[in-house]
Amino acid sequence: MAISPLAPAQFPQMPPVAGVKLATAAAGIRYPGRTDVLLALFDRGTTVAGVFTRSKCPSAPVDWCRAHLKAGVASALVVNSGNANAFTGKSGRTATKLTADIAAKAAGCKPSHVFLASTGVIGEPLDATRFEAVMDRLVASAAPGAWQEAATAIMTTDTFPKGAAAIARIGALPVTICGFAKGAGMIAPDMATMLSFVFTDAPISPRVLQRLLEQGVADSFNAVTVDGDTSTSDTLLAFATGAARGAPRITNVSDPRLPAFRKAFDSVLANLAEQVARDGEGARKLVEIIVEGAVSKPSARKIALSIANSPLVKTAIAGEDANWGRVVMAVGKAGEPADRDRLSIWFGGIRVAHRGERDPAYDEAAVSATMKKPEITLKVDLGLGRGRDRVLTCDLTKEYVAINGDYRS
Amino acid sequence: MAISPLAPAQFPQMPPVAGVKLATAAAGIRYPGRTDVLLALFDRGTTVAGVFTRSKCPSAPVDWCRAHLKAGVASALVVNSGNANAFTGKSGRTATKLTADIAAKAAGCKPSHVFLASTGVIGEPLDATRFEAVMDRLVASAAPGAWQEAATAIMTTDTFPKGAAAIARIGALPVTICGFAKGAGMIAPDMATMLSFVFTDAPISPRVLQRLLEQGVADSFNAVTVDGDTSTSDTLLAFATGAARGAPRITNVSDPRLPAFRKAFDSVLANLAEQVARDGEGARKLVEIIVEGAVSKPSARKIALSIANSPLVKTAIAGEDANWGRVVMAVGKAGEPADRDRLSIWFGGIRVAHRGERDPAYDEAAVSATMKKPEITLKVDLGLGRGRDRVLTCDLTKEYVAINGDYRS
Repeated sequence: MAISPLAPAQFPQMPPVAGVKLATAAAGIRYPGRTDVLLALFDRGTTVAGVFTRSKCPSAPVDWCRAHLKAGVASALVVNSGNANAFTGKSGRTATKLTADIAAKAAGCKPSHVFLASTGVIGEPLDATRFEAVMDRLVASAAPGAWQEAATAIMTTDTFPKGAAAIARIGALPVTICGFAKGAGMIAPDMATMLSFVFTDAPISPRVLQRLLEQGVADSFNAVTVDGDTSTSDTLLAFATGAARGAPRITNVSDPRLPAFRKAFDSVLANLAEQVARDGEGARKLVEIIVEGAVSKPSARKIALSIANSPLVKTAIAGEDANWGRVVMAVGKAGEPADRDRLSIWFGGIRVAHRGERDPAYDEAAVSATMKKPEITLKVDLGLGRGRDRVLTCDLTKEYVAINGDYRS
Repeated sequence: MAISPLAPAQFPQMPPVAGVKLATAAAGIRYPGRTDVLLALFDRGTTVAGVFTRSKCPSAPVDWCRAHLKAGVASALVVNSGNANAFTGKSGRTATKLTADIAAKAAGCKPSHVFLASTGVIGEPLDATRFEAVMDRLVASAAPGAWQEAATAIMTTDTFPKGAAAIARIGALPVTICGFAKGAGMIAPDMATMLSFVFTDAPISPRVLQRLLEQGVADSFNAVTVDGDTSTSDTLLAFATGAARGAPRITNVSDPRLPAFRKAFDSVLANLAEQVARDGEGARKLVEIIVEGAVSKPSARKIALSIANSPLVKTAIAGEDANWGRVVMAVGKAGEPADRDRLSIWFGGIRVAHRGERDPAYDEAAVSATMKKPEITLKVDLGLGRGRDRVLTCDLTKEYVAINGDYRS
């Protein structure tokens, strides 16, 4: 599959995170001739937090993680691609237990400190014994900094590996934050990505880490939609090893040293979430939707998502057509307060509709030129209040249909 | 554009409805060389009822109809295709007023007794003076029974005209019900169709007719979705001329003569709604989604619509892939009570998943054969309660993207 035209030029330079070692292997889960298992090993004392799909039919690994998150302690992470271990019933639960046992035995830790994620086809039993053949080698070869290999091993229909890093300070001490993610379809709040993992050497208590994650996800992964479909497997886990030498442990969400860290942490989440939109299945355009003048931020979010998930808006953008009539439609169907006669719409900074009518000054040629760009901002001002929000999405192309019309077979 | 492979073999035989005359004309609204205006004239005493889009940004004709529906009296209906007169602000209101004035003058009735609907591009001013050139001729040529011409004049991206008829009895007296509709994209509850009009010669009070319409729409037009996008213009109007000689006037919803009529009336609505799904843009498969075992009918409806609107389910069906994993996903994202371990799924009567796992007896070859058919039933049993519902949709094909990627230009 061709790499998305919206992909970054290259995988970013990402430093190792003290206390995190990574390894990948080809276990033959589904796709031959590619890596499909990732192992991350963590130093003692690593804390963990997680947010998951709100699906009523979550995958077995999501159930596993939720059950073991309370202690807030992590020793290892095992992720596989090719099989989501979702809707696999009792055998799915058995597979998660077996996977954790295999990893715990090889890594010398408790099974309950092993976190799991799986992505791929739904409903096929996952043969966890496949992990047995590769686990010792994974543990032995785990090394710091193999981010690109890790991000590549968890890909399914993604066309490029997605990584992001930031350096933050806790007090005077620099700490590192690195993360990676995979998309690329079945992407919708909550959450937006199927799988994402973020690692830091900062010492952060599980409770604070959980808060950071829950707040950080709102305007990053939860503000991205590809097709409005929510996975059974969406998993975002954060691990804090505390291995940054001399950094003070943060145990309180109101710690004055936290905001600087939070800013860097949020930037990594936002960067990864944007890459997920850039790799939306079949995407040719990255679309930023800004809604202003709504009665509240949640109302602006709902309207922005209604626009972002509208097949008619998305196909119009694929066709490079500034079809703001469909934007009006999507605003109208959101069910949120809106007044046609106060509504204004911009494509790429050009106002095409103003207070309920086509903008008389609007120059079709200029708008057409804007629509040909790979990144398009669509702004709506409702003229009602001060609520504002922003979401990212991509266009809906024939390639999306082609990719999803024969993904399983 | 090729006629949908799901189209009925031919337009049905439809009798005239006493008290209704129809005429069409080519006014050059948008498309050259085709009829684009429909006029219906009604005998004195015709009652009217209507249900409309719940969009917060409705079209000017929707506003017009709502404002004039209270009196419950109709003399004429004017419908145009090619321009929706939506998001046209003050000029839109002026256009509806002018259209009603032109029709009222030609037909010799009050403007407030003229009902209006427009379908087509949003945001372009509608030049209502175009109606002036054709209106006298329309009035002069109006004749009973020109159903197919009427259904054709209101088409936009529809590939076939949609009509349905039924004979009912009120007491011993036969009465006629005829209707037509247009889709074909931007089809979602509420309501499902952009425009539909139903006519009967039964004498029914406006209040009873309104009740019939509101109840009848729930399991017909509101149970159809093509792309989850709700039009600004969705309009369903019913007209009862009362011209059936000797039929008793029905003024009470509990009149014992009403149920037989209601049954026929509902069948016309259901028939038209199904034709809308059969003409979904780019559709190659008609998909019936049945949800059973939900905690309630509204819960079953919400889950059925979540499945019906899922791009991943719809593209899988386009690819003839019985990808029930995506059905699990769509059940899970609906947010309604569901328990993975009680969930069972059938494609075309073949159970592929049973109580949270792949059905061990499931024969891939048999399912594949089923998926090749043009009409597919997808059934989900949640195993929780007695709530049941049914919706109709179609698959999502590359043709949908192609049609909507350059509809405006």
